[in-house]
Amino acid sequence: MVNEAHSASSRSEGSSSGSESSKDSSRCSTPVLDAERHERLREKMRRRYDSGDKWFSLEFFPPRTANGAVNLISRFDRMGMGGPLFIDVTWHPAGDPGSDKETSSMIIANTAVNYCGLETVLHMTCCNQTKEEITGHLQKAKRLGLKNIMALRGDPIGEEWEEEVEGFNYAVDLVKHIRCEFDDYFDICVAGYPKGHPEAESYEADLRHLKEKVSAGADFIITQLFFRSETFLAFMKDCQAIGITCPIVPGIFPIQGYHSLRQLVKLSKLEVPQEIKEVIEPIKDNDAAIRNYGVELAASMCRELLDSGMVSGLHFYTLNREVATTEILKRLGIWKEDPRRPLPWAVSAHPKRRVEDVRPIFWASRPKSYIHRTQEWDDFPNGRWGNSSSPAFGELKDYYLFYLKSKSPREELLKMWGEELTSEESVFEVFTCYISREPNREGHKVTCLPWNDDPLAAETNLLKEQLDKVNRRGILTINSQPNINGRPSTDPIVGWGPSGGYVFQKAYLEFFTSSENITALLKVLKMKKYELRVNYHIVNVRGENITNAPDLQPNAVTWGIFPGREIIQPTVVDPVSFMYWKDEAFALWIEQWAKLYEEESPSRMIIQYIHDNYYLVNLVDNEFPLENCLWQVVEDTFELLNCPTEQ
Amino acid sequence: MVNEAHSASSRSEGSSSGSESSKDSSRCSTPVLDAERHERLREKMRRRYDSGDKWFSLEFFPPRTANGAVNLISRFDRMGMGGPLFIDVTWHPAGDPGSDKETSSMIIANTAVNYCGLETVLHMTCCNQTKEEITGHLQKAKRLGLKNIMALRGDPIGEEWEEEVEGFNYAVDLVKHIRCEFDDYFDICVAGYPKGHPEAESYEADLRHLKEKVSAGADFIITQLFFRSETFLAFMKDCQAIGITCPIVPGIFPIQGYHSLRQLVKLSKLEVPQEIKEVIEPIKDNDAAIRNYGVELAASMCRELLDSGMVSGLHFYTLNREVATTEILKRLGIWKEDPRRPLPWAVSAHPKRRVEDVRPIFWASRPKSYIHRTQEWDDFPNGRWGNSSSPAFGELKDYYLFYLKSKSPREELLKMWGEELTSEESVFEVFTCYISREPNREGHKVTCLPWNDDPLAAETNLLKEQLDKVNRRGILTINSQPNINGRPSTDPIVGWGPSGGYVFQKAYLEFFTSSENITALLKVLKMKKYELRVNYHIVNVRGENITNAPDLQPNAVTWGIFPGREIIQPTVVDPVSFMYWKDEAFALWIEQWAKLYEEESPSRMIIQYIHDNYYLVNLVDNEFPLENCLWQVVEDTFELLNCPTEQ
Repeated sequence: MVNEAHSASSRSEGSSSGSESSKDSSRCSTPVLDAERHERLREKMRRRYDSGDKWFSLEFFPPRTANGAVNLISRFDRMGMGGPLFIDVTWHPAGDPGSDKETSSMIIANTAVNYCGLETVLHMTCCNQTKEEITGHLQKAKRLGLKNIMALRGDPIGEEWEEEVEGFNYAVDLVKHIRCEFDDYFDICVAGYPKGHPEAESYEADLRHLKEKVSAGADFIITQLFFRSETFLAFMKDCQAIGITCPIVPGIFPIQGYHSLRQLVKLSKLEVPQEIKEVIEPIKDNDAAIRNYGVELAASMCRELLDSGMVSGLHFYTLNREVATTEILKRLGIWKEDPRRPLPWAVSAHPKRRVEDVRPIFWASRPKSYIHRTQEWDDFPNGRWGNSSSPAFGELKDYYLFYLKSKSPREELLKMWGEELTSEESVFEVFTCYISREPNREGHKVTCLPWNDDPLAAETNLLKEQLDKVNRRGILTINSQPNINGRPSTDPIVGWGPSGGYVFQKAYLEFFTSSENITALLKVLKMKKYELRVNYHIVNVRGENITNAPDLQPNAVTWGIFPGREIIQPTVVDPVSFMYWKDEAFALWIEQWAKLYEEESPSRMIIQYIHDNYYLVNLVDNEFPLENCLWQVVEDTFELLNCPTEQ
Repeated sequence: MVNEAHSASSRSEGSSSGSESSKDSSRCSTPVLDAERHERLREKMRRRYDSGDKWFSLEFFPPRTANGAVNLISRFDRMGMGGPLFIDVTWHPAGDPGSDKETSSMIIANTAVNYCGLETVLHMTCCNQTKEEITGHLQKAKRLGLKNIMALRGDPIGEEWEEEVEGFNYAVDLVKHIRCEFDDYFDICVAGYPKGHPEAESYEADLRHLKEKVSAGADFIITQLFFRSETFLAFMKDCQAIGITCPIVPGIFPIQGYHSLRQLVKLSKLEVPQEIKEVIEPIKDNDAAIRNYGVELAASMCRELLDSGMVSGLHFYTLNREVATTEILKRLGIWKEDPRRPLPWAVSAHPKRRVEDVRPIFWASRPKSYIHRTQEWDDFPNGRWGNSSSPAFGELKDYYLFYLKSKSPREELLKMWGEELTSEESVFEVFTCYISREPNREGHKVTCLPWNDDPLAAETNLLKEQLDKVNRRGILTINSQPNINGRPSTDPIVGWGPSGGYVFQKAYLEFFTSSENITALLKVLKMKKYELRVNYHIVNVRGENITNAPDLQPNAVTWGIFPGREIIQPTVVDPVSFMYWKDEAFALWIEQWAKLYEEESPSRMIIQYIHDNYYLVNLVDNEFPLENCLWQVVEDTFELLNCPTEQ
């Protein structure tokens, strides 16, 4: 919003305000762990206003480059941890905002809602566009799972702006159009100007225009930035005085640099108060000092707003930066320090995925890929892949899309995974370095693997010692979890779900290994002590499959028991989806690793050999109350390999 | 079968044998705990033959009186515990066998399959009946959930029997008719005669007739009784020699009395071997001696059959008696001493209920009533009563059907529950005597209550001391379970499901109590230590409802974790079905108890007062790993009542 000038002018006309909520009436097949998943943004907001719980939201603009997009999405993930009520993505008419480009407003918002699981508001401007164009954008937004629109006029083209008779001249026209064409589907936000819009006839006239937008069906208001809390509080009282009753969220602009402030002032036609100018001018070349001052200033204004009792939510113009906003939120105590996970995996915010309550464990480190490959599903099977529904998984080719790619450039990957591989053992070393976090021979830390974009999860870290040991010997682990026998749901590492519950896990281990190792492993798994205790699936790239699972039923490996609820079992090992995962897991050897090297090069051929000959194995220890036996299984396998004649 | 003479004659004709199995192809929404629930009888039988596991089946005939029916059904429940592969019910043409009478073959078989959860074979005879009549019987059987028919000729009417040209003259005609009209829906059993049918031209001709019945589509054979194992083994070899390959089950007749043996011999035209006659004649007036001899004789013959390696299943003509057959089965070691329950409640054998995997806890002591009231359901909700599907429960009037009534006659109930009640306290005493198993003031034991047909369950017995204490003080408990934190699924008292698993429970307590007690109880429940821990529902007969359950979601109170499976949660407390249960629970005060007394009598008015003024309460302690706090809740309530001024 900061990057655009908005029109608050609007034609006066009788409004058709939002009709009854068009709530999904289909049968809910899953227990509802998180009431918020079923609420519309305006309901969530209303609930916070009613309860007095403080909240915040974050505004971003679309990046200019694909690399910038990858970085912004990581930022969504990180800033999402702090618990914003929503984020919003601005609309850049010059950047083809409704297109499928990686950097378009539409696609960035799509990524935020679907892959990052964030409640997302998409900005949309209407001037200089036809009804059909706008309807097309809205339809696309709806199709992608976006449920909230910030309706804006946008910048007129050219210096002197003239009304078009049939066109969209004001934000209120867009609000009306949305309500007319999409009924109550979208929650609509509009812009408010605490000092009045610069183009408005007067402050009072601007207030009346705002009321028209609300009457036309807007659900809440976000304000343009301001520099003093009194400005906002006076505006809010004036709004109330003329009968605006919807939530009004103050827009907070943390000053982060001298130039961005100047740019902003130019665009918004706001005047920076003298006392701020006086502080800033002397330090204008000291970015850190300006940012510190900006944080201090914004935090104290926010505190005044919250203390007024009239404000429960704050909207931040982040300028796509992380540090200043996070710092302010932490100082205010509204950054969630202990993010409560509703489920062990990040829930997508697409309305179709509301009922999703179970996923295969295989994609634990590649959740975006799972969401992508299942985006066409209408149903999220309650662990039923195995029985009869077997929904198809999306094609593998899809995951070369930029947001599923490795975040690191080729040169960095080569440094981590080896400029030149000399043997299978040099591949083992890469895995070992990833686990141990020790630098490799060339002194580079291995911070990701083709199957793991991020360093080891805190939980997996519990298993670090054993993982290190087995990877050295060619058990190339890509996924694992320890067993858990009833830990509180609030446990900082393994907890999830509402408080007062208990969470459980069966131990899980997934790895690639050579066919020689498999021969020994199978002998061990058939030993009496493991036979009934450990379930295994072993498969190679050609789909040759060895298992002791009695049928195609899923095995629940993570579950939780909560007060007043049904049992939740969000993670399963299921034989059917494992075959889809197998394709992806093997393809990653080639697509992400082998292709770093020249064709026919020894390095490439080593990876190709592993891809062609190794097996992918998953093991579940069903005895969750006892000590995890999977390490002993691997130990016994090594022992058998060492003295092959003995058995 | 013993009570009927069967025709083994049959016309020779090309057969249309059973087509492909018409398995239910609808989506299975539940994890399959028990493979047998999905198998047809012939598949179960084949599996036992393949594995060599020994099994048995039990034959009953329909009783003559309604009282006899109630007793027979209790016998089904008890003998069902021993694990028969199936039971069968004979067809009595003279007793209107296809009618809706309480004593008809059809209704007895219906009860066995639906309410007792037994795999059931219904006999059916065909002579002297029209095609339409027979089709009508078969359609009705299918509608009731019966899946297996024993196809018989039946007794011709009159001394001299003549073939009807268009009618059903032989059992093979019935087999063909079933396959023609119902395709492969039914599993079909036919009768075999180890000595040849008395009316057959020869033993060899009778064998050929048997082969025709099998070729026409019969799935297995049960034989007429015989007195020597050699007789059966020779018959079996002869059957195999002419190409009969289906299972042949020997029919075992334990001699239980002199007169029943004579009657049988007359009907079956079999000759009793001399050595048996010689033992029996001298002791013909000593029933006990004859039965002991019969048990000894049958057990040793069964042992010979099993030892032959040709027999894995035994079919018993029980004559509706329990002791002799049970004794033989125990001696043979094929009576299940430790019945493994697939779920905590008895699973109905109706094919529609295959997928049923969750029930409300409220009907724990009235499972037949639950089955009856939900018999029209197409879906068995996976704990979803609360969300949106809310299937209607059958009308209350239904449960006056004889098999849901109390098994005791009025006089006995009056002795147990009081010829004359003088106060609410005299009602408390009845509950206390039921719990403690001590005789009441008149010296009578209280073995049932309107809500509990049977004495306390073994599991509830664990809570006896506390239950005794609270009932004395007017907390009239009708249902409870202790908490369980991961006991082996093979635990003899609380275990269920496949071996190798762990079962869990949340503590549950359900009771009626006065409104004064409710006032104090509510204060206690709102204390901080219970507020987030205990879920409660409190309701009176008018449906006035007090609860702290946050929404209409069910609370799982019994669940199990098994190797290679999803979580199973077979018992829930759910708010929606509680309202249906409430109607039933309050009605039982009036229908079963108040109506024992004259109208306007003080006794009746006391029960009516309780019905009108008491509340029904259920409590769940969500903290299953800690000590059950529900007794402390009640204790605290009493304390509050004792010193009402203190709080």
